[in-house]
Amino acid sequence: MFKESKLRSIIKSLSWRLLATLTTILIVYIFVGDTKVAFSIGGIEVFLKMLVYFFHERLWEKIRFGRREIKPLVIWITGLSRSGKSGIGRTLTEKLQHQGYKAEHLDGHSIRDLFPETGYRREDVNRHIKRIGFLARKLEEQGVVVVATFLSPYKESREFVREVTARYFEVYISTPATVCAARDQKGIYTRAASGDLANFPGVSSKYEVPQKPDLVIDTSEIEQKDAAEMIFSRIRKKL
Amino acid sequence: MFKESKLRSIIKSLSWRLLATLTTILIVYIFVGDTKVAFSIGGIEVFLKMLVYFFHERLWEKIRFGRREIKPLVIWITGLSRSGKSGIGRTLTEKLQHQGYKAEHLDGHSIRDLFPETGYRREDVNRHIKRIGFLARKLEEQGVVVVATFLSPYKESREFVREVTARYFEVYISTPATVCAARDQKGIYTRAASGDLANFPGVSSKYEVPQKPDLVIDTSEIEQKDAAEMIFSRIRKKL
Repeated sequence: MFKESKLRSIIKSLSWRLLATLTTILIVYIFVGDTKVAFSIGGIEVFLKMLVYFFHERLWEKIRFGRREIKPLVIWITGLSRSGKSGIGRTLTEKLQHQGYKAEHLDGHSIRDLFPETGYRREDVNRHIKRIGFLARKLEEQGVVVVATFLSPYKESREFVREVTARYFEVYISTPATVCAARDQKGIYTRAASGDLANFPGVSSKYEVPQKPDLVIDTSEIEQKDAAEMIFSRIRKKL
Repeated sequence: MFKESKLRSIIKSLSWRLLATLTTILIVYIFVGDTKVAFSIGGIEVFLKMLVYFFHERLWEKIRFGRREIKPLVIWITGLSRSGKSGIGRTLTEKLQHQGYKAEHLDGHSIRDLFPETGYRREDVNRHIKRIGFLARKLEEQGVVVVATFLSPYKESREFVREVTARYFEVYISTPATVCAARDQKGIYTRAASGDLANFPGVSSKYEVPQKPDLVIDTSEIEQKDAAEMIFSRIRKKL
């Protein structure tokens, strides 16, 4: 957040008026060839233009044309592990920021790194996601577009986020578990399949498929970059 | 967040230039009495002024004077139940917003209302406060001044918030438990004293007094409104 001081604005206004009026004086002098006339016109212009500018500003203050409030929204990206959520979210956030929007990427992994005590049982996950929803709402209230990428396998907490935020846009990354498992280099899918990891959505626990997502993307067919582009073009009108 | 469309800016610029140049033409005509000269000067002014304005803008773009970045901060208000934290926080937040800052009040009570499952054991409280700290940091990163009013009795989680935020300003409301108990109309202090409420800081569990607060306020002596004013005058220079 930047602020310009009143003094800067005042000095800048004076410097513009000086420069603008000197320009007028110069033009008049070139045409009329009379220094006295040129400076008299300049002298009157200084005051008259300030007055005219003031009324011009007040008039435009009343004209609504072209002025719109940016209503941010919460873009909630849900899907299995290794489905490409984080990458899509990162690209989308950068795109939004590049377009001049305030945007924040909340990512499941980085937040869990900060709160290692967060559990993986159903109630732990639901509680975690609900709190993220609250964080998203607070950011949304401050005019920030939130891009949230969380596995978020349970309907209960996703619905809580939908309720608690003003504008919720749900993106379901529908990439099948087999495709995600093939991409997995850390061996989490193998560990889950062997029974080593309990509560692993899509393998050892259920991923509750969203019933009414605003957008469905399968990253077995679509590149992450294009997926981010798809989401952006869908939400653009909403902003 | 408001945005003005490019088209609005273009039309407004044209309307100003038209109005300004008509003013120039009028002044010149009154002085010189020659329509042709007046309109010639106006015609040249239209283009020359736009050029001069452009270079004037570029010049000021390079001048740093009077331009400063608002660095928000997290004002963390800790103290016993009924010590007046929430009231002070509300007044302070309104004051900040009134002064043109983006400010958000995070209050222990309203957040617990939303998350009724939050426990009162030491580890529950620490986990809760740490998550609030993360929320505060995200808001701070987006340029929002955060006013957080939480009992937050434990050093561990307060220090986590200090670490995780960029600029942390700790206010310790030092009002003694006896004074707070006398204000308590809901009978929580009585219930805690009778052993009915475990983990009630200041009575049935310890409130760990801040070791290096930035400001200490005792509301047995100072009104809530004045306390908010004190905090504001201390942080004003930091913003």
